[in-house]
Amino acid sequence: MNAQLTIVKVGGKILESDEALKNFLDDFCVLPNPKLLVHGGGRSATQLAKRLGIETKMVDGRRITDSHMLEVVTMVYGGLVNKKVVAALQAKGINSLGLTGADLNLVRAHKRIVKDVDYGFVGDVDEVNVELLASLIARGIVPVVAPLTHDGKGQMLNTNADTIASNLAGGLANNYSVRLVYCFEKPGVLIQPDDDSSVIPFLNQQLFQMYCREGIIAEGMIPKLENGFNALSMGVNEVVITNIEGLTIPDSGTRLGA
Amino acid sequence: MNAQLTIVKVGGKILESDEALKNFLDDFCVLPNPKLLVHGGGRSATQLAKRLGIETKMVDGRRITDSHMLEVVTMVYGGLVNKKVVAALQAKGINSLGLTGADLNLVRAHKRIVKDVDYGFVGDVDEVNVELLASLIARGIVPVVAPLTHDGKGQMLNTNADTIASNLAGGLANNYSVRLVYCFEKPGVLIQPDDDSSVIPFLNQQLFQMYCREGIIAEGMIPKLENGFNALSMGVNEVVITNIEGLTIPDSGTRLGA
Repeated sequence: MNAQLTIVKVGGKILESDEALKNFLDDFCVLPNPKLLVHGGGRSATQLAKRLGIETKMVDGRRITDSHMLEVVTMVYGGLVNKKVVAALQAKGINSLGLTGADLNLVRAHKRIVKDVDYGFVGDVDEVNVELLASLIARGIVPVVAPLTHDGKGQMLNTNADTIASNLAGGLANNYSVRLVYCFEKPGVLIQPDDDSSVIPFLNQQLFQMYCREGIIAEGMIPKLENGFNALSMGVNEVVITNIEGLTIPDSGTRLGA
Repeated sequence: MNAQLTIVKVGGKILESDEALKNFLDDFCVLPNPKLLVHGGGRSATQLAKRLGIETKMVDGRRITDSHMLEVVTMVYGGLVNKKVVAALQAKGINSLGLTGADLNLVRAHKRIVKDVDYGFVGDVDEVNVELLASLIARGIVPVVAPLTHDGKGQMLNTNADTIASNLAGGLANNYSVRLVYCFEKPGVLIQPDDDSSVIPFLNQQLFQMYCREGIIAEGMIPKLENGFNALSMGVNEVVITNIEGLTIPDSGTRLGA
């Protein structure tokens, strides 16, 4: 039986306040090794773009990434956020390594094909190369992955952090029994958006489709759950959607399954 | 006898134009493995700071790094420049890995002690931890190191790229016969600043002191050469100061020695 690896994707408001990030990292540290962190960046990129006079364009909650915005997200996700997390983990005695998809050729993607919308420099994942990553994890390193990929032709691309987490989890499922945790500001997938006690404890594809039809699961939660189910189909053992508190409490949040 | 490792530090104007960077990387690729690249960032950080309304303060050619400027250099050096280089090398089939001093706890530093000038978040190097780096190099990885360090307490610091190159070269001298090349826009240390044919072919400490006294070697060249001599004292086999062309031509540039 393979050893367990915990992959945590953290995003949303947790990354936007130093206090929430500190709380998150305190709990992340408690998780047993081996572990890997994937972070988003979200609104911090929007803020920098605004200061630089670059307009943020969103379509269906997805960022349009022109060449100026690509520079912003490369700086904010790959530089500012990634190194803040790496330095904070080092301070806690966790030997971490910040990565983008270009580093170690970890996540290779192609520029999203233009259909109705031109998303610009947004990358859809083609492959992950986890051999070196797995050997670093085996040596006790905790990788910290930013939501950036490359196309193998020298172009960085902006890629959704949930998707990167899902693909890395799938790639590492050959080496490890993988637990993938999507950690955000809500305790799980909610029936009532404003009622934190209305967590759906378990979702399979059938229930997911049903809740989507009923409009209970909508908007950004749909691609997040699709990424979760993709991870399961790639051999990931467990996928959970929860908040910081749920990271260290068993059976909290929403668990995905067959 | 140890295998040879080439460490190239690239800075100055070479990083400021896409064409010069492309030319540099073409020549860097030709160098035999194993190799490691340390890059500066310089004026690109100044440009971003200006766009953000952050004033750049320099004392004796050294950047004062307040908390705003630290964010800028973390974004520009650790994000934009580092990932541009990594993605470009991947496109050439070179499996590269971008690093700051925080990643893998590679370069630990302390905030420079305030004497006459408060340099802010500038780090003076305490130690390098090259064990994991050496094992990655042995596996064919080409590390690309940004001029940032950390203090082990969660604080990123801005550190001179020449100094990082010198310290990494010194650290790796236990594993490798190290050739350290400081690559910039001039063909070497010049007697006449405007005459590229006036390269000083060889410098030892005695000649260095003499040229300093005569004012022939001055300003930014002094710390660069001090870093070079430090590398020699840490067991580095060869230190050369040259330009892109000199990277691949033997006996070009200025060689330092005992």
